Amino acid sequence: MIDSCIGLTNTMGMASVAEGLVKYTLERNPLAGIEHDTVIPVVSECDDAYLNDARGLHVRPEHVFEAIAAASDDVPEGAVGAGTGMVCYDFKGGIGTSSRVVDVQGGKYTIGIIVLSNHGERKELIIDGVPVGKLLTSVENPKREENGSIVTVIATDAPLDARQLRRLAKRAGMGLALTGSCANNGSGDIMIAFSTANVHDRHQKERSVLTDNLLVDNEMSALFRATVDCTAEAIINSLFKGETVKGRDDNIAPGLPIDETLQLLKTHGRL
Amino acid sequence: MIDSCIGLTNTMGMASVAEGLVKYTLERNPLAGIEHDTVIPVVSECDDAYLNDARGLHVRPEHVFEAIAAASDDVPEGAVGAGTGMVCYDFKGGIGTSSRVVDVQGGKYTIGIIVLSNHGERKELIIDGVPVGKLLTSVENPKREENGSIVTVIATDAPLDARQLRRLAKRAGMGLALTGSCANNGSGDIMIAFSTANVHDRHQKERSVLTDNLLVDNEMSALFRATVDCTAEAIINSLFKGETVKGRDDNIAPGLPIDETLQLLKTHGRL
Amino acid sequence: MIDSCIGLTNTMGMASVAEGLVKYTLERNPLAGIEHDTVIPVVSECDDAYLNDARGLHVRPEHVFEAIAAASDDVPEGAVGAGTGMVCYDFKGGIGTSSRVVDVQGGKYTIGIIVLSNHGERKELIIDGVPVGKLLTSVENPKREENGSIVTVIATDAPLDARQLRRLAKRAGMGLALTGSCANNGSGDIMIAFSTANVHDRHQKERSVLTDNLLVDNEMSALFRATVDCTAEAIINSLFKGETVKGRDDNIAPGLPIDETLQLLKTHGRL
Amino acid sequence: MIDSCIGLTNTMGMASVAEGLVKYTLERNPLAGIEHDTVIPVVSECDDAYLNDARGLHVRPEHVFEAIAAASDDVPEGAVGAGTGMVCYDFKGGIGTSSRVVDVQGGKYTIGIIVLSNHGERKELIIDGVPVGKLLTSVENPKREENGSIVTVIATDAPLDARQLRRLAKRAGMGLALTGSCANNGSGDIMIAFSTANVHDRHQKERSVLTDNLLVDNEMSALFRATVDCTAEAIINSLFKGETVKGRDDNIAPGLPIDETLQLLKTHGRL
Repeated sequence: MIDSCIGLTNTMGMASVAEGLVKYTLERNPLAGIEHDTVIPVVSECDDAYLNDARGLHVRPEHVFEAIAAASDDVPEGAVGAGTGMVCYDFKGGIGTSSRVVDVQGGKYTIGIIVLSNHGERKELIIDGVPVGKLLTSVENPKREENGSIVTVIATDAPLDARQLRRLAKRAGMGLALTGSCANNGSGDIMIAFSTANVHDRHQKERSVLTDNLLVDNEMSALFRATVDCTAEAIINSLFKGETVKGRDDNIAPGLPIDETLQLLKTHGRL
Repeated sequence: MIDSCIGLTNTMGMASVAEGLVKYTLERNPLAGIEHDTVIPVVSECDDAYLNDARGLHVRPEHVFEAIAAASDDVPEGAVGAGTGMVCYDFKGGIGTSSRVVDVQGGKYTIGIIVLSNHGERKELIIDGVPVGKLLTSVENPKREENGSIVTVIATDAPLDARQLRRLAKRAGMGLALTGSCANNGSGDIMIAFSTANVHDRHQKERSVLTDNLLVDNEMSALFRATVDCTAEAIINSLFKGETVKGRDDNIAPGLPIDETLQLLKTHGRL
Repeated sequence: MIDSCIGLTNTMGMASVAEGLVKYTLERNPLAGIEHDTVIPVVSECDDAYLNDARGLHVRPEHVFEAIAAASDDVPEGAVGAGTGMVCYDFKGGIGTSSRVVDVQGGKYTIGIIVLSNHGERKELIIDGVPVGKLLTSVENPKREENGSIVTVIATDAPLDARQLRRLAKRAGMGLALTGSCANNGSGDIMIAFSTANVHDRHQKERSVLTDNLLVDNEMSALFRATVDCTAEAIINSLFKGETVKGRDDNIAPGLPIDETLQLLKTHGRL
Repeated sequence: MIDSCIGLTNTMGMASVAEGLVKYTLERNPLAGIEHDTVIPVVSECDDAYLNDARGLHVRPEHVFEAIAAASDDVPEGAVGAGTGMVCYDFKGGIGTSSRVVDVQGGKYTIGIIVLSNHGERKELIIDGVPVGKLLTSVENPKREENGSIVTVIATDAPLDARQLRRLAKRAGMGLALTGSCANNGSGDIMIAFSTANVHDRHQKERSVLTDNLLVDNEMSALFRATVDCTAEAIINSLFKGETVKGRDDNIAPGLPIDETLQLLKTHGRL
């Protein structure tokens, strides 16, 4: 069970976002910490210290309230929120999303993925099978030591239990591979998977046995496929929405040169 | 899902027991390996080479058939089956069992445990809180290097999912601790937990979503308590059923001196 | 590698302590977040909402600075620091410590353990094998729902690698069992083990291969024994240092009645 | 520590190969099971029941002796040994190998990989970024239900500890992804990684502390890259060495049509 919204931020902003999520959740749960459990927030992070003045600890708890208030169905991608300072394959990365509706026998389920992309060197970048990173020439590569990682959050309405969600989460690493990453040494890649099915009141005490729906394992492959593909697509989306950013100490993360990229995809028979 | 009976044996008997379980299961599943999946047997082991002529590989596949044919509700304990050559706290160990009926809100569930005890030095042995191993004097301690481990199999009819069963399995280690063990370096202690609830036909293809019962987590504590207590009790039972055995090269595992043990429990206010 | 001091606090104080540790570490590492990595603090927690006004979020980052400044070789136990609001076996718990010097072939190593004890019901409490919790009568048991857990931090100067430290950490659960716990459903028991041997500069770039000492596995058993015993002892120490505390809404955690406890140990032949 | 050669076989051949490895190792270690530990063999498997008469249990212990006697530096690939009945992306799969010499600061290390490929549907197959599986037309696709998996064994002479080897093993899944797999529901994909550095005599008792070399984590990325790339290459090699096989009940696994595949790689700018 997840107690709070899931927060994404930069490494040393974890504490502020955790505090913000605790305060936000406490305000809406007057029994929390008294009759009900205390709040354990869910926060994850990547290290944006190449662009960000990370030592300044600029993320504050009140930004959590602002972010939740601004939440909408129209999710912006790229250099927004936690994505502001992220760098992916030496280009400007950040927030990316992707989703699929998956047909299984007798039903349809949705897989929705959001990534915070902050990993990889340019020479590794693969888009739709084409080693774009090695071929791009129009933009100078920043001199930086790549040491980043990625967060992937996977949401589904498929009725999955903890074991199945864990299997789903592992497939995000396969999507990451499709974009060229080998999850280098600096990576502390995190995958979080949750289902919105089988929601129960944790504090109900009337029943000791609940009745849950559960997808049969034989139908998992379609969800795995969607997770792999959406993770890769969300990463590429984060790059296509990235624009050149100059950060602290004049460190630069160039935006992916979209025209040149599309041209490369064409010459390799992908478009 | 478990494909076969669960086999317990000695370390280098694993292959024979696996082969026996595969053959036994194939005989009863004419579609296995053709239309249905091949058989993956479940076997676990402890090392009985102190008493047993382990190099002789005396356990053969046909012994699996004999063991299953001889199975009954009246489970013998001590030096039987896989327990024949096991040594526990330097005394004769082997098979031990214990069970509890657990009350939860609105129901009753059973926890049943079988151990193959083959761990520990005499000086560690604790029975019902009394450091019996340090106090026993009537039996000479064999000179041997302790390097053993224990297998614990936990069966329940409580409707638990994989996550909950994993939590249950971990509690067996706490029961082991109550008998004095620190799970020494040689230990490769294995716990297997399974539930007989929510049985489904793996090969059904009519439904993609099943409806399972699931115990709420709040009720798990009673099952944890039973698992800890039964594991400890099953280990002690294996010792109380052990009689002195002389094995290969005149290696001796003495039976626990029961009268002296009971006397020690009395003088420490336990009986 | 551990970037910061290890902080212990209450559940919803995690964010404040993380922020304090980040600030404290940044002050002492002017290159962190610029040329060196950002800081990832290590913090763990138990839920003290039975005694504490947890919703008040009274722990603040500056308390981390105060705690570090006040650190000394003379570690206080009981209701101090993170231990202030903790309840253990329905008695006042909190901070407890214990250590052992362990002889291995050709050397001596120290195991030092600190616990933040916040787990268990009175009826479970076992001290040195005696079921004290069921026998104590001089103090009324508070009516409360037990839902707590324990943090155990294990420090050693033995040269252990990550695999061996993980094995060590698991043994803390066996020490917990010796005090009567079954790690009930509410428990999110955390064990952290680290070694002070083989310290290297993470940022050195001169050498790609380091030479580490490594304890042979055969010598691990003695460290396991010490970990089990010290964990149990540290928990009992936290109880013996506990004095009755009245917290929020007049919730009471009585101190362990020491005279009665010692008397019980005597009548069971333990003293 | 690994006690035996590593055996690969089909699912229900596990027992025979385990028995063969035990016997082979016992013959060469007259103290095993007496003064030294008993033998714990390492065996892994994939399910070849689509082509193989798996129920016939045709693999016998003596085949282990034959396989070891026939071992050479010139490793055959494709339908050999355990690979005989394997099917990969609906084409004939089996054994594939690949290796890299990796430069790190001040040294060179080798990563060598062998796969037993038995996974995937044709439509998933990607070779060097080109979705070959969807484009191949010259060979009819067999009607079969894909339910397979893959074993990857990674050997290196880099001085890595257990934690680092575990990290290496996980990267094999990323190489698998590059060939198009999503590790579907039937997959029980196994990765085994070992290092030939820091070899010690397990039974030496003179020294309690050994001195090991250890690669610094900062140099791991190059090994990760090699592991990802070699896993993918080994899988593709297993396909390029596969020739059409007709198995039990006239089940057919066609060989990868190499000319058409190479043509597709050319038209997509890969050759």
